[in-house]
Amino acid sequence: MKIEIDIAKILRDNNNFYILTHKSPDGDTLGSAAALCLALQKMGKNSKILCSDEIPKKYEFLFEHVKNQNFEPGYIISVDVADTQLLGENLSCYADRVDLCIDHHLMNQQFARISYVESGFAATAEIIYEIINALGVTIDADIANCIYTGISTDTGCFRHSNATSHSYRVAADMIDRGAKAFEINKIMFDTKSRAKLSLEKIALESLEFFCGNKCAMITLTNDEIMRSGARSSDFDGLSAIPRQIEGVLIGVFIKEEQTGMFKVSIRTDAAIDASEICANFNGGGHRCAAGCTICGDLADVKKGIILQIERYMRDAEV
Amino acid sequence: MKIEIDIAKILRDNNNFYILTHKSPDGDTLGSAAALCLALQKMGKNSKILCSDEIPKKYEFLFEHVKNQNFEPGYIISVDVADTQLLGENLSCYADRVDLCIDHHLMNQQFARISYVESGFAATAEIIYEIINALGVTIDADIANCIYTGISTDTGCFRHSNATSHSYRVAADMIDRGAKAFEINKIMFDTKSRAKLSLEKIALESLEFFCGNKCAMITLTNDEIMRSGARSSDFDGLSAIPRQIEGVLIGVFIKEEQTGMFKVSIRTDAAIDASEICANFNGGGHRCAAGCTICGDLADVKKGIILQIERYMRDAEV
Repeated sequence: MKIEIDIAKILRDNNNFYILTHKSPDGDTLGSAAALCLALQKMGKNSKILCSDEIPKKYEFLFEHVKNQNFEPGYIISVDVADTQLLGENLSCYADRVDLCIDHHLMNQQFARISYVESGFAATAEIIYEIINALGVTIDADIANCIYTGISTDTGCFRHSNATSHSYRVAADMIDRGAKAFEINKIMFDTKSRAKLSLEKIALESLEFFCGNKCAMITLTNDEIMRSGARSSDFDGLSAIPRQIEGVLIGVFIKEEQTGMFKVSIRTDAAIDASEICANFNGGGHRCAAGCTICGDLADVKKGIILQIERYMRDAEV
Repeated sequence: MKIEIDIAKILRDNNNFYILTHKSPDGDTLGSAAALCLALQKMGKNSKILCSDEIPKKYEFLFEHVKNQNFEPGYIISVDVADTQLLGENLSCYADRVDLCIDHHLMNQQFARISYVESGFAATAEIIYEIINALGVTIDADIANCIYTGISTDTGCFRHSNATSHSYRVAADMIDRGAKAFEINKIMFDTKSRAKLSLEKIALESLEFFCGNKCAMITLTNDEIMRSGARSSDFDGLSAIPRQIEGVLIGVFIKEEQTGMFKVSIRTDAAIDASEICANFNGGGHRCAAGCTICGDLADVKKGIILQIERYMRDAEV
């Protein structure tokens, strides 16, 4: 028997659902939660969504048709939450009480009584799609918008390597059911704040090349960040810029987090192990995307990083 | 009987195919041509692709497995060509000799003996997909890469409003057949030349706001373009930047084409008719994307455009 059929039975047998999302919420945790909540409410169940942090404005449309219901929790579900720490401070009280965890992260910590983790899926929203179908609830345009948003945001609009044919097929079905894909992608990917644009301009002004142009680096100091008026969401995508330049194998983005404390993000071509470079500074991550934190003044931080990159390139004969 | 079955019969009954693409070739005309050529060669037919212009480097991988064959034309097919003028100078000799036109442009001029125009499809590659299936040729990874490229480039990686569920489903099938979607999208959308980046930086420096921040404008002069070292392909996407800014309803991009001659591109929110604004300068286009050419000095050109935009906003009470 397929697991989504078991899960559907459990949902049918319970009521008064609290759906927990992760802190610093993104389109997948919110889209998944909203889709599931709408489906449960369509079944006549009480259901509400909780998030530790404020919902960013661009995701508000997901909740337009979610009914506001007040009740004590009867069954607690987390969506897209790999670890109870990610519930955030305001939801930490539920950490030991999660009945069902629905997630797609390979490293899910299996903290719930029941876990439905499908790491082959690009987005938790793809699992929610399977569950709603198993529930026999018809996916209407509102639910379709939520599921589409989850998939599109977690795949970077189908540009990341995690997007599978399943992601595309579910997206196709959502469009047929009324999802406004164009409008959603416009909000998610084609809208920039003035502060973000200002940040990009400042970052581009700092662009430098090293290692015979195989390495490109951009930097942002505290002062520059203040001057731009940027909020945390405005930094999305900045770390990818240097690596996107033609011929560049290693992209470095250095951002002053606090005075004299720099967060370094390294993005690399598959031939180069970014995590190995970051390990020299007690950092880590994945092969093509890793990071570390270094204290000092900017000139020294840059010098230190470039030294390690040069050494890596020499040893790896890239 | 479905038209692709008729077309398949015609292709089976003929040989020595010349496949014509449009000038300033893009991913759809080249991907469609390469997919069709590979399928015909798999059937043992002679087939070759012609293009008036040089193939941009980023599309070269499409032709990696296309066999180089020399023969006189027996049957001439155009793909993604709406009008014979778009064949370009070097292919103009074939303008009156096209046997079969395969295209998705609504305004196709029906210049060929037989036209297979499906304007509901986002990309000509989607039509090629139907034809290859009707031919009974198995779509291998090479053909899948070509079809995926056509769809992805013509939909701006599924971000434009033309992407339908059919586009997504064909893309899903291509991925299952081995298309390297991630690598293709990386080349098409995540790689920028240094000149393009330099161009973006210069354009951002020129950013100005008008009409209570509802209108944003960027400009590039001849001198600035020269300084950046940009080629024509480096301008892709620049005209979209001002409109993408939060709260902006009208984005204006002014580019000096020749000394004292400026090309103006206007992108608008659906509430505003860009073509009406451009009509004041003998230009035109679509509701949300239009253009015109104005001669003068930059300050006067800007002043003229802003005046018309202000008048439009006042009249339309936006």
